[in-house]
Amino acid sequence: MSQSVHVRAFRNLLGDGGVVDDPERIATYTTDQRQLFTGSTFAVLKPATTEQVADMLRLAAHHRIGIVPQGGNTSYCGGATPDDSGRQIIVSLERMDKIRELDPIAMSISVDAGAILKNVQEAAAAVGLLFPLSLGAEGSCRIGGNIGTNAGGLSVVRYGMTRDLLLGIEAVLSDGTVVSDMRKLRKNNTGYDIKQCFVGSEGTLGIVTGAVLRLVPLPTRRATAWLKLASGAPLAELLSLVRRESADLLTTFEFMTARSIALATEAMTGPPSVRAGSGGAVLVEFASSSRHLDLEDLMEAVLAEAIETGWIEDAFLAQSGSQRTAMWRLREAIPEGEKRRNGSVKHDISVPISCIQRFLDLADTQVRSYDTDLELSVYGHVGDGNLHYNVLVPPAVDRMEFTKRIESSLSLKLYDTAAALGGTFSAEHGVGRFKKHLLERYGDVGRIAAMRRIKTAFDPADIMNADAIVCPLVEKSAR
Amino acid sequence: MSQSVHVRAFRNLLGDGGVVDDPERIATYTTDQRQLFTGSTFAVLKPATTEQVADMLRLAAHHRIGIVPQGGNTSYCGGATPDDSGRQIIVSLERMDKIRELDPIAMSISVDAGAILKNVQEAAAAVGLLFPLSLGAEGSCRIGGNIGTNAGGLSVVRYGMTRDLLLGIEAVLSDGTVVSDMRKLRKNNTGYDIKQCFVGSEGTLGIVTGAVLRLVPLPTRRATAWLKLASGAPLAELLSLVRRESADLLTTFEFMTARSIALATEAMTGPPSVRAGSGGAVLVEFASSSRHLDLEDLMEAVLAEAIETGWIEDAFLAQSGSQRTAMWRLREAIPEGEKRRNGSVKHDISVPISCIQRFLDLADTQVRSYDTDLELSVYGHVGDGNLHYNVLVPPAVDRMEFTKRIESSLSLKLYDTAAALGGTFSAEHGVGRFKKHLLERYGDVGRIAAMRRIKTAFDPADIMNADAIVCPLVEKSAR
Repeated sequence: MSQSVHVRAFRNLLGDGGVVDDPERIATYTTDQRQLFTGSTFAVLKPATTEQVADMLRLAAHHRIGIVPQGGNTSYCGGATPDDSGRQIIVSLERMDKIRELDPIAMSISVDAGAILKNVQEAAAAVGLLFPLSLGAEGSCRIGGNIGTNAGGLSVVRYGMTRDLLLGIEAVLSDGTVVSDMRKLRKNNTGYDIKQCFVGSEGTLGIVTGAVLRLVPLPTRRATAWLKLASGAPLAELLSLVRRESADLLTTFEFMTARSIALATEAMTGPPSVRAGSGGAVLVEFASSSRHLDLEDLMEAVLAEAIETGWIEDAFLAQSGSQRTAMWRLREAIPEGEKRRNGSVKHDISVPISCIQRFLDLADTQVRSYDTDLELSVYGHVGDGNLHYNVLVPPAVDRMEFTKRIESSLSLKLYDTAAALGGTFSAEHGVGRFKKHLLERYGDVGRIAAMRRIKTAFDPADIMNADAIVCPLVEKSAR
Repeated sequence: MSQSVHVRAFRNLLGDGGVVDDPERIATYTTDQRQLFTGSTFAVLKPATTEQVADMLRLAAHHRIGIVPQGGNTSYCGGATPDDSGRQIIVSLERMDKIRELDPIAMSISVDAGAILKNVQEAAAAVGLLFPLSLGAEGSCRIGGNIGTNAGGLSVVRYGMTRDLLLGIEAVLSDGTVVSDMRKLRKNNTGYDIKQCFVGSEGTLGIVTGAVLRLVPLPTRRATAWLKLASGAPLAELLSLVRRESADLLTTFEFMTARSIALATEAMTGPPSVRAGSGGAVLVEFASSSRHLDLEDLMEAVLAEAIETGWIEDAFLAQSGSQRTAMWRLREAIPEGEKRRNGSVKHDISVPISCIQRFLDLADTQVRSYDTDLELSVYGHVGDGNLHYNVLVPPAVDRMEFTKRIESSLSLKLYDTAAALGGTFSAEHGVGRFKKHLLERYGDVGRIAAMRRIKTAFDPADIMNADAIVCPLVEKSAR
């Protein structure tokens, strides 16, 4: 059947506002966030209700039309971009972006999966609660995408990843079956917890249409400090000390090398308020919802203890909101600084926290022996064992060509090193299309077999985001 | 083939110590913890290695011998007890009970699934860390069982359930496939998180043989208080206040009715150190690993605020370890008190925290209209919305007969009420055999369909703990 016939059928189901087939408007959906790949599609579907999602999927399955769910299109792994066959169709839940219910006493919020993360954060804050998921793309990423990628971000050390914040789900399988489990319960041991399957599934098992999210008391006090690291300071031991003595009120432990801080500084106007130590710097933040705790006293006591170890050269406690903002701005400007330079080849590596220093040492040696001229930008959520180990694209070099070269050579050596330490090639960014070969290279055989069983159970015909993560067990027939 | 031939074959695989077929020794495995059901088996298998588990499962699958994994046999739902056909075989990992590795800096512990919970707690404490899972059966339950049932317990409000404490897993599927994902990573977004499937699966998808568990800094300071509740005090609002003002240092918020406290008192020697208020009592505890926080000051400030609301009649802050122990002893003696009386019919209910009071009011009316002479013991982990709503078996009444009568009448009304409030019939105890009909009654159709797809994907022949939770999609052939 021709694609125009399909478009007409989808328009019958979803209405005029539910189907975009104008090539210019389509083009805003077909390139991934990092602009590494442009796919092709004949339409973008925008269902407005869960029932429409189910009808749409049944129709797609009937005609074996591949579906690529897309949230805010902020994936770093090409997980929301169709292939270049032109036969897959994009589904966006941007018309399903409502807050369904907020229960301040149960500390939960029920939302459409198309809700933008920042809107969820703001709705929670309005009633004195916090939705703790926080990441660079929060102004445009959507909850469905956060669930599909098990998004991490800046507060994982305290509050966990998206998985840890998910209480309930509503999702539609590729045959139109609606799984409805929109409960706001902390505890519900009644068989397999189906929502866990969708977390991190990157749209390959079905379309998440709704979610119940866990909220926590809104921190009303914060203490923020900038720690200039001494050369050779043991990051993991410093983290242990800070976690323990902060009584787990630690919400941020962000490590930055001097090079990353310099890049960030270049991207900012005016001189930086703080600088790196010879071993880099750590941004530390404590947060508390209690009026009865003096967090600055606590931070001062913890910093005094840390300075005594000799691991930090100096520490600055933010004395005002603007000092705090300036410290955060440095951390947040790093990706911008990389972009201004000529971009970077990103490695979203995670290792056991006890192996962070070892990884840094081994990886630096590998980079130097690969090419002594390469420059690095290394920073990350060390509180979770997560390093963004990025190789800067040299100025005036073709970014795509350089990326391909590094990813097929040096990157594999870095991932090998992470794997040898019990680590992983993707801490929080996911697999998508770009890292599928890495999953094959590093994934345990039994684990991948189990993953393929799950894919087969939910989407045997490989309709849902085919080519991301894994394929079903049986050979797929031609679409 | 005869069962003695099977026993010989298993003995060949597992050695003499790996097979128990003496009826007297078998009898210690075939009755459930609550002594509600006695099943039958021809052997108990005790593999000593993961490879033996795989060999054993391949042999069992080949001969279509049903397998019932059993941890410490402390299930409240009959999930570890074979049926009475005599054709299922029990598997115990009691010979696989080692701590494999403890990494204090990564704050993780790797264990055999047969490790006893208390031994894991003690190993962590020996290096200044806490494994936060804590429950009545901790001296005999095993980690594999905790994972299989997603065990909750006394510290969920702060640290979450077993699912939240699991970093890595090793498991064997019914066809002998070993899934090995024993990583100690906080973040690892590399496809479907297979370990989540096993959490709460009650042995129906495979046998968990190893686990990596998350540890947290060991609290070195605690503040414990006993709150006498005023009549009609809003529990959920009190919890909100205490959570917020404790800065999330709250580890315990255990509610007890006056009747439960009286039962506990009867089970203890000597007079109780604290008593119930007219609305019952709440045991509250804060814990911190920091030397720089005065938790008693914090508790006093929070209690002063709580008293001002009028919701509590009085509050006692434990002034010594023995006062703290006495408060805890009252909470912990409740099940014992129920047993001394003549036992109870247990309802492990969870509702959204905002609906706790409404559930208590509605349920009490239902109980009174069912039989005005019935007595209740109601208590629970209200910090998680979890109530143990137990109907006492009247003295000199047959416990089994009474239980069956209540469970087929009043219990359903109570569960209906919980369900109408968005709650559940099983907060932390699981489904097992005893609550399978409840899953059918209350489970969302789409969710159950998805559960059956997962069961089918992992165990199509229904070898693993058949009759617990759900059956596969296809008709099972005769075994």
